[in-house]
Amino acid sequence: MTPDDIAGFHARRTDLDLDDYIELDFTFECAGDPREAAAHLCSEQSTAQWRRVGIDEDFRPRFAAKVLDLESQPRPSGFSIPVECAVRGPVHACRVTIAHPHGNFGPRLPNLISAVLGEGVFFAPGIPLIRLQDIRFPDSFLSAFQGPQFGIVGLRDRLQAYDRPIFFGVIKPNIGLPAEPFAELGYQSWLGGLDIAKDDEMLADIPWCPLADRAAALGEARRRAEEETGVPKIYLANITDEVDRLVELHDLAVAKGANALLVNAMPVGLSGVRMLRRHAKVPLIAHFPFIAAFSRLAGYGVHSRVLTRLQRLAGFDVVIMPGFGPRMMTPEQEVLDCVRACLEPMGRIAPCLPVPGGSDSAATLEGVYRKVGCTDFGFVPGRGVFGHPMGPAAGAASIRQAWEAIAAGIPVAEHAVAHPELRAALDAFGRK
Amino acid sequence: MTPDDIAGFHARRTDLDLDDYIELDFTFECAGDPREAAAHLCSEQSTAQWRRVGIDEDFRPRFAAKVLDLESQPRPSGFSIPVECAVRGPVHACRVTIAHPHGNFGPRLPNLISAVLGEGVFFAPGIPLIRLQDIRFPDSFLSAFQGPQFGIVGLRDRLQAYDRPIFFGVIKPNIGLPAEPFAELGYQSWLGGLDIAKDDEMLADIPWCPLADRAAALGEARRRAEEETGVPKIYLANITDEVDRLVELHDLAVAKGANALLVNAMPVGLSGVRMLRRHAKVPLIAHFPFIAAFSRLAGYGVHSRVLTRLQRLAGFDVVIMPGFGPRMMTPEQEVLDCVRACLEPMGRIAPCLPVPGGSDSAATLEGVYRKVGCTDFGFVPGRGVFGHPMGPAAGAASIRQAWEAIAAGIPVAEHAVAHPELRAALDAFGRK
Repeated sequence: MTPDDIAGFHARRTDLDLDDYIELDFTFECAGDPREAAAHLCSEQSTAQWRRVGIDEDFRPRFAAKVLDLESQPRPSGFSIPVECAVRGPVHACRVTIAHPHGNFGPRLPNLISAVLGEGVFFAPGIPLIRLQDIRFPDSFLSAFQGPQFGIVGLRDRLQAYDRPIFFGVIKPNIGLPAEPFAELGYQSWLGGLDIAKDDEMLADIPWCPLADRAAALGEARRRAEEETGVPKIYLANITDEVDRLVELHDLAVAKGANALLVNAMPVGLSGVRMLRRHAKVPLIAHFPFIAAFSRLAGYGVHSRVLTRLQRLAGFDVVIMPGFGPRMMTPEQEVLDCVRACLEPMGRIAPCLPVPGGSDSAATLEGVYRKVGCTDFGFVPGRGVFGHPMGPAAGAASIRQAWEAIAAGIPVAEHAVAHPELRAALDAFGRK
Repeated sequence: MTPDDIAGFHARRTDLDLDDYIELDFTFECAGDPREAAAHLCSEQSTAQWRRVGIDEDFRPRFAAKVLDLESQPRPSGFSIPVECAVRGPVHACRVTIAHPHGNFGPRLPNLISAVLGEGVFFAPGIPLIRLQDIRFPDSFLSAFQGPQFGIVGLRDRLQAYDRPIFFGVIKPNIGLPAEPFAELGYQSWLGGLDIAKDDEMLADIPWCPLADRAAALGEARRRAEEETGVPKIYLANITDEVDRLVELHDLAVAKGANALLVNAMPVGLSGVRMLRRHAKVPLIAHFPFIAAFSRLAGYGVHSRVLTRLQRLAGFDVVIMPGFGPRMMTPEQEVLDCVRACLEPMGRIAPCLPVPGGSDSAATLEGVYRKVGCTDFGFVPGRGVFGHPMGPAAGAASIRQAWEAIAAGIPVAEHAVAHPELRAALDAFGRK
């Protein structure tokens, strides 16, 4: 690139109408001049050939992505991860903010993903290592999206559950049970105090446990539990399937008795979720398979909060995400970033409920609550309820007992003395 | 896990009916005992709690994923990339082959992705670094899929192009031109000898160049080019958009004059592609945005040949992939693995045409041909045709001239002496 070529991909905020641009924060490692590498990054993701041969024109003013801020630091030891790179030269670690004109592609999720995580980003000359750290949308872009239909407020109203976390549980064994015994486990967990008993993200509409049978059995069990406890309950059915079955499975599951639906967001595709959102009569809950494949490493891929924001934009009311503790291999700050991405203002898009999960039980509830810092979260044990030594009702009760203690300012271990379910949970699942 | 727990997730091939299983090759780095880590990897991706509390049952024989082969080597220096890991102990680098029972979820792409790239794979205790290296499907699973409708044979018949590569070109400038001047560039490139003029993967159905206008203008230009040259041509329109518009945009683009369609596979979602395949009247071509985010690093994520296989399974007739040379940051062996994943036998699923691409021109054609080793590939320059100093017709001619030389066994540089378009291409795009 010539100095003029490079200059055409740099701009000051005051030069742009920022409502026309999505802002992208990247970190990257480059070989050669960081300012040129950043210009390539903009060029490749927007207009790499900005004029026809033999015609005096320049598409950059309207169509080019532009560098707004760039910081760089030398890395004398070279790239942090071994990679192929055609450009030779000193290596720098950089942070850049880029303004990408959303008029290039419009308010479409597949085209957005292609622009901000596509060939232009991952094949920019001189930049073999890059990570999309965050994304910000102007109101002009957000206005085309519905976002969550129920959100946190709507979910709380449905459950009549206020000023406390929402208590989920993943029915286990997750795979292998037919509908009736599977429903019995859900029933027990509701009696014990769960708000939401859910299918595992791996449980599909499968011959040995068809969705129709499962939703009917769980729906019936749910209504019995509601009658016996006097409080509303939710059966969260997994309808993850081919996209052209989502609407049909929505209708089937809801008609039979499911009153919230789980979708594995990235395996199905966010666009399929946005389609389902337009049709949905019940809350939609996201699960996180596949996301770790591109979000775990600190120096490459995409920060998981970007995916959280996109899931909220697509219309999920609840986002289940890898939670706290080394078991889930996610730095605490990253979990908090994802929690915040659910809760913080996002133009007209309503907040969604964050559910940081993974190997939870009565023993981990207080820690999760302290870290999240408010009650607007969901808590989703699996074996912590359904592997409880006294069974699922006791497992669910142990969670509610732990919350009673936390809400009352009593140490959980102290509360356990007079509450055998909680005591058994701490014995089975607490730190040895 | 107890020794018995671990043993329940290991098996010999002769113990299993392999038609019931998908085979997965992973590499991973683990802390602690590799045999236990591999058992966790199976457990987490299938049935992590294989019995109800208080009931004597075991879902593992039917529902558990099982280790078939495991090799491990100590890594005294620890993990190759810094990561969080809850398990302490010596680090090993491992290769494992796992049999995963596809009856757990059925022949559904989102559920397949959830199983083989989901929470179970990326959150197995002790395994913070893992890469899905390859996947093999039994006929019982493949039989539920259509695969490519036209494939290589069908595409060649449509173009009447045999015993040579298929010549694509990405119309540039990719972003910013309205339909008429954009079509004029396509027209010129067909006259010069391209088989297929294509939209860039970033070009959407956008107000400044609506798909209807573009397909009409390019369709008309294509028919003129076919009349003037006497050979069939293809306009490849990008219909990447929200999944619920794919069928509508297919019908619109084809009615107006497009005769093949481009879809950004992973941003749209493979399930959306499988849906489109059932409806499609023209060949479907995949582009690769987003894939590098989870496939570039040697020690993490997923090998891109897995995605190639899934794109073929979803029904693409052509798969465009990052090609050879350091510009595309993809090791040569990986490109060849992806090429082979298109061409090699896959049960009843027809081969699809591999198009290894990236900064190609007449100067790179011979190298690509020698590396692929046969004529069953597509070649897809962008600037190599549309940035040719003599214009797109000359750019396309330079590609055909390069192929004439290769096919006749004449050195390309020698052929260039009497062919000014080829000479200009080598001057502009050849190694300086």
